[in-house]
Amino acid sequence: MRKGCKYGTHRVIEPQGVLPQPALKISNDMEIYDNEILIDVIALNIDSASFTQIEEEQGGDVEKIKKRILEIVGERGKMQNPVTGSGGMLIGIVEKIGESLIGKTDLNVGDKIATLVSLSLTPLRIDEIIDIKPEIDRVEIKGKAILFESGIYAKLPKDMDETLALAALDVAGAPAQTAKLVKPGQSVLILGAGGKSGMLCCYEAMKRVGPTGKVIGLVRSQKDKERLEYLGVCHEIIIADAQKPVEVLNKTLEANNGKEIDIAINCVNVANTEMSTILPVKDDGIVYFFSMATSFTKAALGAEGVGKDVTMIIGNGYTKGHAEITLQELRENEKLRKVFEELYAN
Amino acid sequence: MRKGCKYGTHRVIEPQGVLPQPALKISNDMEIYDNEILIDVIALNIDSASFTQIEEEQGGDVEKIKKRILEIVGERGKMQNPVTGSGGMLIGIVEKIGESLIGKTDLNVGDKIATLVSLSLTPLRIDEIIDIKPEIDRVEIKGKAILFESGIYAKLPKDMDETLALAALDVAGAPAQTAKLVKPGQSVLILGAGGKSGMLCCYEAMKRVGPTGKVIGLVRSQKDKERLEYLGVCHEIIIADAQKPVEVLNKTLEANNGKEIDIAINCVNVANTEMSTILPVKDDGIVYFFSMATSFTKAALGAEGVGKDVTMIIGNGYTKGHAEITLQELRENEKLRKVFEELYAN
Repeated sequence: MRKGCKYGTHRVIEPQGVLPQPALKISNDMEIYDNEILIDVIALNIDSASFTQIEEEQGGDVEKIKKRILEIVGERGKMQNPVTGSGGMLIGIVEKIGESLIGKTDLNVGDKIATLVSLSLTPLRIDEIIDIKPEIDRVEIKGKAILFESGIYAKLPKDMDETLALAALDVAGAPAQTAKLVKPGQSVLILGAGGKSGMLCCYEAMKRVGPTGKVIGLVRSQKDKERLEYLGVCHEIIIADAQKPVEVLNKTLEANNGKEIDIAINCVNVANTEMSTILPVKDDGIVYFFSMATSFTKAALGAEGVGKDVTMIIGNGYTKGHAEITLQELRENEKLRKVFEELYAN
Repeated sequence: MRKGCKYGTHRVIEPQGVLPQPALKISNDMEIYDNEILIDVIALNIDSASFTQIEEEQGGDVEKIKKRILEIVGERGKMQNPVTGSGGMLIGIVEKIGESLIGKTDLNVGDKIATLVSLSLTPLRIDEIIDIKPEIDRVEIKGKAILFESGIYAKLPKDMDETLALAALDVAGAPAQTAKLVKPGQSVLILGAGGKSGMLCCYEAMKRVGPTGKVIGLVRSQKDKERLEYLGVCHEIIIADAQKPVEVLNKTLEANNGKEIDIAINCVNVANTEMSTILPVKDDGIVYFFSMATSFTKAALGAEGVGKDVTMIIGNGYTKGHAEITLQELRENEKLRKVFEELYAN
């Protein structure tokens, strides 16, 4: 038995004592430990911030971009951009499953998967770069990667296009958390309802509140409103500026018969929307921040400043079954799938 | 009837449409609305960052500091430092209660209270500065202030020294949230257990886990450990560096018979302790960040990176009864009160 740490610390080379993500160099030796999974990699989906940085640094020259990617992975044992710190995800085929995971994982050799942990902590060896598709930040390679015992992944479905599945999986945490949080009869406000995670959250909230609850979608533009109306995933749609808490409060109360709401879910990817999310929620209600533009201190001090006794949750990108919940939404709803195909899978 | 907005937006002069905290100027006209409370102010406890900035700007000259404070309140209608943006709190006597609040508030005219909402959003008029005590950032004044309907406060207890009560009230959110979260039989890790909020959280957690649970305090130094041992508010005390997640994980597992814990509470006021708080917690467990040094994105992406299905909560400085819960701790525990008097009330 050669069992590693479930978080992969056994592969950290430098500096010692840290986790694989902050590490400068990890081992990409492809001899797997008993609790690791070996993946035959097909493609890397480089994080957009990272890809753009490398592209600009190399003047858009594809050969130079290739060389730079090989250099980074050679130095670090993982595809973590030294400037942005970010990674991305990969697609590949399960090649070998460590002994101690057999029977514990639902994966089989030959399954096509997407890893949902960042490339910034995934041991990777590139043998050859086959092609680069700069318009979708995609790098097709021959190579191998390792998934740690704690590493999360999704089996790629056979009944939908790969780019469609990946677009949905990218934000899988939000709808899955919505599914867990929202209860029948509740009133739910979703800020940024017209965006990718927003639409999925609305659909999921509609399912969960049942016939007695209410889902209110907040969007910025008339176009977003029309799309949501077409989808039919909200009881009420309001157009408001999420950076203006008093406007959001008043319009939400109006849409909810003058009552404060039970749950607010923030999917807006701009800063300074904390108070708009907190103000409309009733005492003992829940505020769920999925937006990465959320400021911890603005939320904490903001709620205190207005004396709101609400539970504020940091959106965790992972929750059990998140991939399956999200893909299932696209299977269940023809219109949602169509909109996703048009917007994100071209 | 002249009823204002419960959050005080009716007093915002500039710019229109924002809440009183971000406003540049609010009305400090002391004619109260029917849902406001008028306070005869005794003293301002200026936020430490704000006081230090003004003190340095004015070269430590007390007369110049006085002049600058009068200027700020004159311009803004509130004591909000234009550089730091921060405020502080005040102590005063309830002078008048708006008609629509009579019978709804537990306050009576003549009560001595501390406001627990920031001075950065509290209408204030200073008639005279009596004295400044730079060593405790305190400004004694003659003047009036307004508490909005949503404004939180604590009645100052008659059975303890004012500075002792204020020191405890300053962190009242953390122990009160602990009281709500922690259930009998649970295992709880408190990071930063040796600090002000940490000690109060430990004591509260000990009460709530009952005889079958376990409270593990994590501290940085031997001296902190000895103080916690004297207090008797932990079952186990570990010395570790909260910025080293692998070290924290291993020592926590060791202290908890090899098992992951149910709840982790972060009271450490240094950056980069998110992963140390997340890693030791079991799936479906709770991570509660009270530290203002918490990074939203580090927590969100960190939990995803290690595939942890935990609920992460942003510490809300306010929860119902938080002042009473916290003051009661000092009444119940003679040792805790003694340590607080020694450390924070001199």
